[in-house]
Amino acid sequence: MGIKIGVVGCGSWGRNHARVYRELPDAELVGIADLNPAVAREIGEKYRVPYYAEPDKILSDPEVQLVSICTPTNTHAELGLRALEGGKHVLVEKPMANSVAEAEDLIRAAERHHQWLTVGFVERFNPAVREAYSNVTEGDIGDVILAHSRRVSRSPGRIGDVGVVKDLAIHDIDIINHLMGVMPEAVSAVTGKIRHSYEDYANINMLYADDRNAFVEVNWLTPRRVRTLTVTGTGGIINVEYTTQQITIENDEMIMQPFLPYKEPLMEELASFVAHVLDDEEPEITGGDGLNALRVCEAALKSSATKKRVKLGV
Amino acid sequence: MGIKIGVVGCGSWGRNHARVYRELPDAELVGIADLNPAVAREIGEKYRVPYYAEPDKILSDPEVQLVSICTPTNTHAELGLRALEGGKHVLVEKPMANSVAEAEDLIRAAERHHQWLTVGFVERFNPAVREAYSNVTEGDIGDVILAHSRRVSRSPGRIGDVGVVKDLAIHDIDIINHLMGVMPEAVSAVTGKIRHSYEDYANINMLYADDRNAFVEVNWLTPRRVRTLTVTGTGGIINVEYTTQQITIENDEMIMQPFLPYKEPLMEELASFVAHVLDDEEPEITGGDGLNALRVCEAALKSSATKKRVKLGV
Amino acid sequence: MGIKIGVVGCGSWGRNHARVYRELPDAELVGIADLNPAVAREIGEKYRVPYYAEPDKILSDPEVQLVSICTPTNTHAELGLRALEGGKHVLVEKPMANSVAEAEDLIRAAERHHQWLTVGFVERFNPAVREAYSNVTEGDIGDVILAHSRRVSRSPGRIGDVGVVKDLAIHDIDIINHLMGVMPEAVSAVTGKIRHSYEDYANINMLYADDRNAFVEVNWLTPRRVRTLTVTGTGGIINVEYTTQQITIENDEMIMQPFLPYKEPLMEELASFVAHVLDDEEPEITGGDGLNALRVCEAALKSSATKKRVKLGV
Amino acid sequence: MGIKIGVVGCGSWGRNHARVYRELPDAELVGIADLNPAVAREIGEKYRVPYYAEPDKILSDPEVQLVSICTPTNTHAELGLRALEGGKHVLVEKPMANSVAEAEDLIRAAERHHQWLTVGFVERFNPAVREAYSNVTEGDIGDVILAHSRRVSRSPGRIGDVGVVKDLAIHDIDIINHLMGVMPEAVSAVTGKIRHSYEDYANINMLYADDRNAFVEVNWLTPRRVRTLTVTGTGGIINVEYTTQQITIENDEMIMQPFLPYKEPLMEELASFVAHVLDDEEPEITGGDGLNALRVCEAALKSSATKKRVKLGV
Repeated sequence: MGIKIGVVGCGSWGRNHARVYRELPDAELVGIADLNPAVAREIGEKYRVPYYAEPDKILSDPEVQLVSICTPTNTHAELGLRALEGGKHVLVEKPMANSVAEAEDLIRAAERHHQWLTVGFVERFNPAVREAYSNVTEGDIGDVILAHSRRVSRSPGRIGDVGVVKDLAIHDIDIINHLMGVMPEAVSAVTGKIRHSYEDYANINMLYADDRNAFVEVNWLTPRRVRTLTVTGTGGIINVEYTTQQITIENDEMIMQPFLPYKEPLMEELASFVAHVLDDEEPEITGGDGLNALRVCEAALKSSATKKRVKLGV
Repeated sequence: MGIKIGVVGCGSWGRNHARVYRELPDAELVGIADLNPAVAREIGEKYRVPYYAEPDKILSDPEVQLVSICTPTNTHAELGLRALEGGKHVLVEKPMANSVAEAEDLIRAAERHHQWLTVGFVERFNPAVREAYSNVTEGDIGDVILAHSRRVSRSPGRIGDVGVVKDLAIHDIDIINHLMGVMPEAVSAVTGKIRHSYEDYANINMLYADDRNAFVEVNWLTPRRVRTLTVTGTGGIINVEYTTQQITIENDEMIMQPFLPYKEPLMEELASFVAHVLDDEEPEITGGDGLNALRVCEAALKSSATKKRVKLGV
Repeated sequence: MGIKIGVVGCGSWGRNHARVYRELPDAELVGIADLNPAVAREIGEKYRVPYYAEPDKILSDPEVQLVSICTPTNTHAELGLRALEGGKHVLVEKPMANSVAEAEDLIRAAERHHQWLTVGFVERFNPAVREAYSNVTEGDIGDVILAHSRRVSRSPGRIGDVGVVKDLAIHDIDIINHLMGVMPEAVSAVTGKIRHSYEDYANINMLYADDRNAFVEVNWLTPRRVRTLTVTGTGGIINVEYTTQQITIENDEMIMQPFLPYKEPLMEELASFVAHVLDDEEPEITGGDGLNALRVCEAALKSSATKKRVKLGV
Repeated sequence: MGIKIGVVGCGSWGRNHARVYRELPDAELVGIADLNPAVAREIGEKYRVPYYAEPDKILSDPEVQLVSICTPTNTHAELGLRALEGGKHVLVEKPMANSVAEAEDLIRAAERHHQWLTVGFVERFNPAVREAYSNVTEGDIGDVILAHSRRVSRSPGRIGDVGVVKDLAIHDIDIINHLMGVMPEAVSAVTGKIRHSYEDYANINMLYADDRNAFVEVNWLTPRRVRTLTVTGTGGIINVEYTTQQITIENDEMIMQPFLPYKEPLMEELASFVAHVLDDEEPEITGGDGLNALRVCEAALKSSATKKRVKLGV
């Protein structure tokens, strides 16, 4: 039983959505779509649900109540709008759209059609991020003065339609926005392109009020996979290891690594969205969060191109 | 025997100069001075050399050929000038002066009086830094895209007359200038003051041509001492641990930590300056290096105050 | 196509055999059995193969050429004998039997029936173990003087019919026998029982000729999962991390961690056995290896009970 | 002022005793001796105390109240006896004597002459060892089932008159005896000689009542210095890093590394002995502790020679 769900786009990540919805007690996967008929068939047969090569078979199906959009970025806005117009709640993968303007369209459409909209910031549901957020907000390391993230590894191989800023950095930007509780006042960034058609490395400095800042480091170049976040406060430091889902907290008295049981972040994310939709409550990640992260991404790309700090208006 | 040397300023660091000169075969410590007569006496007796409470007893002693100036920053320029005028080669501790203008005075005076001038960037003589420099310049990690340093720890306790930018960050700024081989085109920084009379944390982004950059992180706030430098290239990463003097090099095939025998960086530094002076050759660290690091420091402080990227003129 | 295979026992590990055989190009899974009909049905349906609640349906099926026996330990010998008598090649999970005597029966039966017999020492196919073995045998750390393994973690929860010696330590015993190239001359061990019906911790000292020895540490008690092997030679040390499949080699010049691509050990193990059977060659792990490990296990349990070193006859 | 102290033997370690006594408020270094007149002079001049090439000048000086004996092992008993007969309290370096018989002589002499006797087990005063001891005895990791120490590094270069068992392993043997609170019932060991005139590696298994045991690993062969102790309890694990003086405690809920301020173990050791002598109280380390460690050492060497477990009588 549960809420009836369709997944549009069954590439490497979309098929994870399908798998996880199948396992959620409050969700019922009722169909999937992929422009590639062989992929659609493979996933449809695997999970024994109807499958289509035309997304509209899902987007216009009156039975479907919630749609996950896992297609390439440049289709997010259009498919998201059609889903919202079709009266469906929408989870759109990150980045939620190609541009800030498109993202704003999506948010307005969700409001107009009274549907819930969320964005696939899966790392927010990583138990290590949740624990770090709770430690920071409880003041365990004093006032935050710096957040520094690293998300580097070899080229992913798969062909995407965005560079590292919107593909990788956007995760850390969203998490840092969440930790800081406000948007940065300005962004200063350096990006470069060595072996890919889009920028394949980026270093983004997010500048906040009260002399706080963050430094986001991403690339598709270096051999060893690193996924870390270090938050420095006036009284201590928290280190987050995204991959192992562990954190350490350093203060005057000790370094401490609490035992955090492993959880699949995507499972947590989809379960949370389904639960909020069923309760008719605003999801944990809002369209506004997706928009804010995208605004920082665009400012970073602009800063890199113009070699100036780019202010983010209020 | 060896070159005759005086040390001016025998605080926690100056007494290390005295001790090391005593151990160098090509150097002869012939006198020390400290404004505090008790300190002068303690160190003079410990190393059995004449001691004075008046720096000029050293600076105007015709026998003295080389002087280390280890006094508070605001006296560096004046004492350095007097030493140079007195016909002595000068090692001045970092920062070499209070301001870029003073530093330029010192450099001109050294040229005018045909004396060698060097600056106490002791970390450049750390075996781990030397090894990393040689690996980077030999292309072991491809082209450098980012250098990231961390130099954080509890408040040092001792009362100084500069903040963390000129006291701590200046080490990493100099090393990064050296690694990059050119000066940054611009500097963007955030600094803050939490528990000291000068800024006690700073995050400095140095922006180089060709989309390269560096991020320098320093504070006197967080409990655990960290002293690291991570250099990211297009083909790998080098990590430097200043304290343990070890490096790791990561590339496609392995992570490798060469065995580097421990050396005392100050011993290496003073031996190098003495040897260069005896050979009448330009020292490894020049007044120009000291000036360049100071220019970045001043730009960082200005950037923090104005909330803008500050360009460094050519 | 490929060799026709049956899996007997579809508990947590047997179902992995089924999954992996399904993915091997040279293997064809033709049936599975489990005494629990619901389990048999679940796995049979998942992999779309005939399923049975009676092992003999597999063991007496003339079509089946090779059988994996993944049942509880006390049934290994009986089922293995029936499979060999039925003219099947046999992979029996570790420990290969309840006792040395039973293990010898199995080996003789395999010889009598001209079938290949192997034992499921899956860790031997761990890429890190393979790399370490090759480094040791090439003399990279001089002559081995000590091997020390740790395999500790919380209680596995599942109910088995052996203690930690035959369940956990047997892996490291086999690997150490393989590294040493000979059997130990004697065994000295301490075991204890704190929270389980069988011994739940054991420390086993294996004593070899030429003043070499090994120390095997296992438990089902301590909270954090550790799976390591440290081999000390006269000229260096190799550390193996079983879980991450990484090794480090320390010698006079460096510490080096080669990049080892991840491989699923069970996939390597089953592929190797299938390939050897198809080539009619002795498998990498022989019945003799399984017997030798079991002899050490029995000696360890006897040593612990008698508080004496137990000699292993030649 | 303070208690009047002489140091006999001013090799690499004896000179540390001299330096530390000079810094202790309750101690007054009144003389040093070394058979090598040049060494005696060097140390005497450095610390401005009378110096002798004849130990008896110290041992028979009625002014001297306490003597540190830092000579080669084979002179410990004789010099210790003369000091005790001379009415001096004695700190004898480890191993306290060449043999159990000699050690017993020393203990009896101390009793007969009513002088305090202690042994230089400096690692017992390592803050990390003290913290670990307190955690273990407070039950933080449940009941101890295994202690495992590693103390390995390159050859020390200096020429001694004992092998690794009495030079290195004796530290860990003493600490483990202290942690266990009782003597082992038996010892089983393997030792070997690769590049030195005495045994240069040893692995010692100490077997305690109630199925507890310890494994002590030492060598002068492998390139990287390791100094660790891991104590495994039924509910957790404590790791001690002797060199960095840090510990980690792992239990069900976390891994925790408390902040332990650095202390010089030798300073703690000498201050403790001086304080206990001044209070006329039994020192923290007794002659009995030294004897017990030596008994385990002798049992280990005998076990290695006979290839049997050696029982320790009660």
